[in-house]
Amino acid sequence: MRFIVADWGTTRFRGYLIDNEIILDQVSSDEGVSALQKGQHRDVFLHHCGRWLEAEPNAPVLLVGMVGSREGWVEAPYASCPAGPAEIAQALIPVDLTKGRKAHIIPGLFCEPAPGAADVIRGEETLVLGAGVENGLVCSAGTHPKWILVRNGRIERFATYMTGEMYALLREHSMIGRPATEPSDQKGFDMGLDAAERNGGAQGAERVGLLHLLFGARAAVVSGRMASNLLAPYLSGLLTGDEINGALAQFGRPSSVTILADQARSDLYARALARHGIGAERRNPKQALLAGLTRIVQQHAGG
Amino acid sequence: MRFIVADWGTTRFRGYLIDNEIILDQVSSDEGVSALQKGQHRDVFLHHCGRWLEAEPNAPVLLVGMVGSREGWVEAPYASCPAGPAEIAQALIPVDLTKGRKAHIIPGLFCEPAPGAADVIRGEETLVLGAGVENGLVCSAGTHPKWILVRNGRIERFATYMTGEMYALLREHSMIGRPATEPSDQKGFDMGLDAAERNGGAQGAERVGLLHLLFGARAAVVSGRMASNLLAPYLSGLLTGDEINGALAQFGRPSSVTILADQARSDLYARALARHGIGAERRNPKQALLAGLTRIVQQHAGG
Repeated sequence: MRFIVADWGTTRFRGYLIDNEIILDQVSSDEGVSALQKGQHRDVFLHHCGRWLEAEPNAPVLLVGMVGSREGWVEAPYASCPAGPAEIAQALIPVDLTKGRKAHIIPGLFCEPAPGAADVIRGEETLVLGAGVENGLVCSAGTHPKWILVRNGRIERFATYMTGEMYALLREHSMIGRPATEPSDQKGFDMGLDAAERNGGAQGAERVGLLHLLFGARAAVVSGRMASNLLAPYLSGLLTGDEINGALAQFGRPSSVTILADQARSDLYARALARHGIGAERRNPKQALLAGLTRIVQQHAGG
Repeated sequence: MRFIVADWGTTRFRGYLIDNEIILDQVSSDEGVSALQKGQHRDVFLHHCGRWLEAEPNAPVLLVGMVGSREGWVEAPYASCPAGPAEIAQALIPVDLTKGRKAHIIPGLFCEPAPGAADVIRGEETLVLGAGVENGLVCSAGTHPKWILVRNGRIERFATYMTGEMYALLREHSMIGRPATEPSDQKGFDMGLDAAERNGGAQGAERVGLLHLLFGARAAVVSGRMASNLLAPYLSGLLTGDEINGALAQFGRPSSVTILADQARSDLYARALARHGIGAERRNPKQALLAGLTRIVQQHAGG
């Protein structure tokens, strides 16, 4: 099936003309959601994708990502878990394009990972539905990594970690990251994983607290116990290891996790998971996005 | 005994003329260590305290705080734990003032809270030695709260948490803290303590990870589950609660903790500790500093 989609995030607009999970044509710009005011989205979309609308008068049009957030085109309320392609297709939010043509915004998902707790996802749900996982645990690793439990092809529940944003905060704004020097020595990543183990509670280890282990990184450098070029990868390893500790506590210990990330990041997660005796299946995020969109648009067209 | 001291931190210079734990005269300025270049410290000290040097030709002179760090006057190497007034007095580092007169920098302390881990303290050790605790657990709460175990009047070991700095990072620079609105509702602090319990590992609770609970705060606000004026105190409660979980894991669960902090912060710690059935003894930080300095200067004079 041929369709038009905009993957419209906080910082980037990416338009695709897709057929059979293949990109026929594409366009991108820096007109992300954060760069736009209310009322501008329609014109931006028509400017980039109007020629496809004319050439493909019957193609469905989907919008995915932060375009459905409060700061986006219109707010698409979060749908509830469990949710698969059918539930998401039913919760699509229409917006007017031109001459009666509509686009449909894919809603984010809400879940309660624990009683009274809240978590949300907006965009990654579509990748996960295209990752080819019928039953299993998926990690979509980015600024805010998501761990998503899939049951019978539907997203059962998920938990988000602020790992990537935290790393950036520590490097750019904190006293903790200030002594870091370049080029960084990747050995530090494994040392950070070692430290995360001390916060894992396993094998009688005391749960000393992430806020203490973070300060300890600075203390190790200023007291001369750690070379300053180990600090940045150490922080990355510590944060990643603590994320994985928490995710495994919430979702159990599968024999393998499916990782949606670029090659370098996938390698780090695979390395960290191997310490727990857990394998890593890698999926290309863009291919997963195309496959997930195709599943949703098929449900939408057939529903 | 009469003596002169500079409590010389990152952002402030504070000079005192002290006799019998009473401040006879004082001066302060914003010439903290971070505002000065190498070679400027002597002149700054003489400018502010020179009149006391002349009036009190036999008074010992102590310098405490970041003035002994790498960025300070001269670097005073960390002394090892356990350390009490005697060990610290022996490790004082002299610097030249004028006409043969010397000041002595109080060194920081280093400890290994766990094998291979590192922690450092510079300044708070003096407060702790003046807190009137012979055996017990002390919390010096500030930007980087320190939990210090005292045995037989000496600092046995300690652990630092980056709680205060983390709160500032989240409020000022992160997506997590962005939705927070004023005036904040202090009810959120208790909700944050609730969330920290879910990371405590007690009573079968899964250890879900601080990085997840932090993101959950944002998720709760953007999904409409939490009012945005609860967010800031919620983050404060979550971070404080997680710090206390970690400190109690490292140092056991005493019946009471001695807290060195201003009134408002002491109240928050007392509230959080009460959930664990632990009492709080409050000490005024400035009185503790004077008492700790007096103990060190007496050792120095007598040694």
